[in-house]
Amino acid sequence: MPGTRTSFEDHDCGFAQALEAIGDQWCLLILRNFFLGLTRYEDFAAHLPISTKVLADRLKRLEARGLIEAAPDPADGRGKIYQLTEKGLDLSSLIGAFTLWGEKWVPKTDGPRTEIFDLKTGDPVAIEAVNARTGRRLARARVGQRTGPGGSEVRDRADALLEKRKARK
Amino acid sequence: MPGTRTSFEDHDCGFAQALEAIGDQWCLLILRNFFLGLTRYEDFAAHLPISTKVLADRLKRLEARGLIEAAPDPADGRGKIYQLTEKGLDLSSLIGAFTLWGEKWVPKTDGPRTEIFDLKTGDPVAIEAVNARTGRRLARARVGQRTGPGGSEVRDRADALLEKRKARK
Repeated sequence: MPGTRTSFEDHDCGFAQALEAIGDQWCLLILRNFFLGLTRYEDFAAHLPISTKVLADRLKRLEARGLIEAAPDPADGRGKIYQLTEKGLDLSSLIGAFTLWGEKWVPKTDGPRTEIFDLKTGDPVAIEAVNARTGRRLARARVGQRTGPGGSEVRDRADALLEKRKARK
Repeated sequence: MPGTRTSFEDHDCGFAQALEAIGDQWCLLILRNFFLGLTRYEDFAAHLPISTKVLADRLKRLEARGLIEAAPDPADGRGKIYQLTEKGLDLSSLIGAFTLWGEKWVPKTDGPRTEIFDLKTGDPVAIEAVNARTGRRLARARVGQRTGPGGSEVRDRADALLEKRKARK
């Protein structure tokens, strides 16, 4: 948004660090288009409602953060393509969750714009919390959060606020 | 980022619509703190590295978009708290995916800042693609995307770009 300097670099929280590493909404939209299969600067420029200046800046940023990397264009040795790194590919759940949430809560009357599906069975795909050991899907009420060993004063401060509230009741 | 007007309202794609409905990085950071249990304006103000002007603006925006709603404060009838609506609660996978990605790719040496865990078994939780019918976890390579019945010229354009590329090879 205009005039807002958005940096979470000093906010010691995994979520804020992810926001900082991934970048702004343009970065997210570009990343989403990598998952659609776009790889070339001119394809992003043709496809996205984005100025060439912003596009070039965000691609540079995504590359600097290690989310994408440049490679020689297999169709034209002098050109280059961009591709997701493992770090970028690992955003697949996050990007999928955005897409499915958008289809559900900002729907089109004629049906989903994008369908995410199981390539083997054709069934629809959901992005959900699972027990990482057993693979079992977990209802929202069964998922908890706690401060881990790297927990910082940021989390301690949130926990303290909540304790104070509880004590007051 | 400074000077960038970010609006995807006219970009007919579920992902872009989700970005538009959720808002910028401040909105995401505030939403994440709702999932930690914060509910009061003054708690957000105390906890987040955010000016009161931006905080008030983003809370208003989240409320207007139906992600949060105001309710009377149970501890003080004259005050108010904010809480997630069903639409906001439905972002749990997305917010969890951000947090876990941040812990994995921007880690702290002493361990995760936040742990997401199964309240019943204590096991770690992952946010993953599952077959929505069977609940089976799906490897990334087994997850596909296709244009659905609400697919628009935005998707058609991306598909056409990819077809053109394929034909060239």
